[in-house]
Amino acid sequence: MRGVVLHGPRDVRVEQRDTPTIIDNTDAIIRLSATCVCGSDLWDYRGINPVTQPTPMGHEYVGIVEQVGGEVTTIRPGQFVIGSFFASDNTCPICRAGYQSSCVHKQYVGAGGAQAELLRVPLADGTLVATPDLPSDDLIQSLLAASDVLGTGWFGAAAAQAGPGKTVAVVGDGGVGLLAVLAAKQLGAQQIIAMSRHEERQKLALEFGATEIVTERGDEGVAKIKELTDGLGAHSVIEAVGTQQSMMQAIRSTRPGGHVGYVGVAHGVQLPGEELFYSHVHLHGGPAPVRRFLPDLIGLIWNRTINPGKVFDLTLPLDQAAEGYRAMDQRRAIKALLQP
Amino acid sequence: MRGVVLHGPRDVRVEQRDTPTIIDNTDAIIRLSATCVCGSDLWDYRGINPVTQPTPMGHEYVGIVEQVGGEVTTIRPGQFVIGSFFASDNTCPICRAGYQSSCVHKQYVGAGGAQAELLRVPLADGTLVATPDLPSDDLIQSLLAASDVLGTGWFGAAAAQAGPGKTVAVVGDGGVGLLAVLAAKQLGAQQIIAMSRHEERQKLALEFGATEIVTERGDEGVAKIKELTDGLGAHSVIEAVGTQQSMMQAIRSTRPGGHVGYVGVAHGVQLPGEELFYSHVHLHGGPAPVRRFLPDLIGLIWNRTINPGKVFDLTLPLDQAAEGYRAMDQRRAIKALLQP
Repeated sequence: MRGVVLHGPRDVRVEQRDTPTIIDNTDAIIRLSATCVCGSDLWDYRGINPVTQPTPMGHEYVGIVEQVGGEVTTIRPGQFVIGSFFASDNTCPICRAGYQSSCVHKQYVGAGGAQAELLRVPLADGTLVATPDLPSDDLIQSLLAASDVLGTGWFGAAAAQAGPGKTVAVVGDGGVGLLAVLAAKQLGAQQIIAMSRHEERQKLALEFGATEIVTERGDEGVAKIKELTDGLGAHSVIEAVGTQQSMMQAIRSTRPGGHVGYVGVAHGVQLPGEELFYSHVHLHGGPAPVRRFLPDLIGLIWNRTINPGKVFDLTLPLDQAAEGYRAMDQRRAIKALLQP
Repeated sequence: MRGVVLHGPRDVRVEQRDTPTIIDNTDAIIRLSATCVCGSDLWDYRGINPVTQPTPMGHEYVGIVEQVGGEVTTIRPGQFVIGSFFASDNTCPICRAGYQSSCVHKQYVGAGGAQAELLRVPLADGTLVATPDLPSDDLIQSLLAASDVLGTGWFGAAAAQAGPGKTVAVVGDGGVGLLAVLAAKQLGAQQIIAMSRHEERQKLALEFGATEIVTERGDEGVAKIKELTDGLGAHSVIEAVGTQQSMMQAIRSTRPGGHVGYVGVAHGVQLPGEELFYSHVHLHGGPAPVRRFLPDLIGLIWNRTINPGKVFDLTLPLDQAAEGYRAMDQRRAIKALLQP
C-alpha cells in the first residue's frame, strides 16, 4: 500500500509500505476514507523532534473496518469508525476516569502511520467508535476532525472549564485553537477571545463563535486580555501551541482561581514554580483523551450541530502529502486533508 | 509593645516596637491571644529569603478586637477574631470565587508582624471572622491553627480534590502536611498516605486520620505510592514543602487524571513542561485562601469535631520566640505557639 514516510527535515515521501496485518487478536485493520496532517507533525517536519530513521507519519483517521482479530467483539467489518491517536482498552481505572490517552494498556496508533491507505488499530473495541450508519461524503471531514484536532480542542476547553457565564481566551490559531473556540461556544461560554493575527483564521474563529479577536502577543496580549476582563484575566484560557511563550501567555492571561487547559505539545517549556504558585491558576492538560469525547462529538457532527471540518482548507490526494506539509509549515493552510 | 524582629539569619529578637494604630478607616487593631511560628518563617530565618533589614515577623493570629476604624461595620471591639495572612475585601470577583488571598485589594497582614502583643489588620470586615462567643482557653490553639496552618492544609486537600473514595498522599510532615491529613479525613478520603520518617509526626498523622505511613522519599517514595495504589498513583496528592524534589515527588505520585494540590511556598522550583504534559495531572495551589474556609473551620473547632491545635507541640512566652524558631529549625518541634 502507499503511505507517507518522513526521511528527514522537510523530506516527505509517499512510498510503497507493507500492508498492515492483524498482529494481536484485539486489532482491527481499517481502510482509510480520509487522513490529514497534524500541527504536531510539523515538530518532526521542521526537525525540532529529530528524525533518526524513515518514519511512517500520521495519527488521524476515519475509515471502513476491513478485518478484525479473533477477540474483537463490538467492532465489525464494514463499519465506518473513528478512533484517537492513542489506542486504549477503555476499561482500566484510568480510562474509566476519562483519561484514555493514559490508559494502562495504551498504544500509539500513529506508530503505524495513518497517512496511508490502510491502518492497524490495536485494542479495537476500546479504541474505535462506529458511526450510526455509513456517513454521507460531506460529513467525512468533520468526522476526521473528531479523531484529534476537534477532540484535542474540546479537551482544552473542558480542561479550562469553559462553560456558561465564563470568559474564555484561546492562545493559538491553528486547527486545535480554532476548534477550542468552537468547543467553548458549545460548552456555553459567554465571551470567547481568539488570539490571532491571521485574517483567514480570525474569520473562522468568529464563525466558530469567537466574540473578540486579540492580535497582540506576549505581554501585550496579556494586557489586552486583562483590559477585556475588568483587569482580572479570563476565567478559562486554552493553550494550543506548546511553547514557553504561549504557556506563559496563557497562565498570565488567567485570573486567580481560573483554569488553564493546555493541549499544545510542550516543547522546551519550563514553568517557574513561584510565579505559578502566586498565579493561583488551575493547570490541566496533556495528550487529549479524545476517546472520552468521541461519542458526543460524533453525535453533534451527525446531527449537523457543528461543522469542525471547516478547519480543512486544503484537500489533496495522498500522493501530494508533501505539499500538505509545506502549506501548513508556511501557514498557507490551516490543516491539510489527504485522500488515500 | 513587644514584638519579634528578625535581624538576619538565625538572629531573632523580641524588642519594643511602635504600637500599631488605625491607619485606614477599614482597619482593626487586635490584642493577640496567641500567635506562632510558621514553617514559611524558616525560609527567612535560614537566610534562604534574604533579610535586608530588621523585619517584624509573624502572620498567624487570634485575639480580641481593641479598636476599629470608622468604616468597619461588622467587626466590633471585644469580639474574639481570627483572620488570614492576607487581608481581603471579601467582595471583589476574585474573593467571591473563593480566592481571597488574591483579592484585588489584598494586603499582607504579616507586614505588621503578628508575633507581637498587638496587630493592625486591614480590611477588617472582609478579613476577620468572629467566634460565636469568647472561646474557652483550650480552644485557642486550634483557633490559632485555623489562621494559616489548618487553612493551608485544608486548601491543599481541597485543591487536590480529596474526597470520598479517594486515595490521598501527603508530601511533607510539617504542620501543614499533618493538617492536610486531617482535612483529607474530614473530606471523606478513603486511604490517606502520610510521607514521613519522623516518629512523633507519624504518630500525629495516624491520629489525624492517616491510614498508611511511607518513609521513602524521591523516586523510592513514588514507587511506594504506586505499590499502594495498584501501580496507578494516588488520586490526590498534597504538596506541603515547596522544593523541586517535593513538587516532582507529588506530581509523580499522582495518577493520570488525578489532582496535585500544592501549598508549600515554591522556592527555586522549575516544572518541566513535557513531563507535566504527559503526566496528565491537575495542578492547583498557591497561597491558601484561608478566608474561604474560616467559617467552616471555626465551626468544626467550636463543636470539637477537630483538634488541629495538636500541631503545637511547644508553647513559649513571646519573649522566648528565638527558642521557638530554633526548635522548629532543628525539627525538635512541629510548631511553636507564642503567648504574648
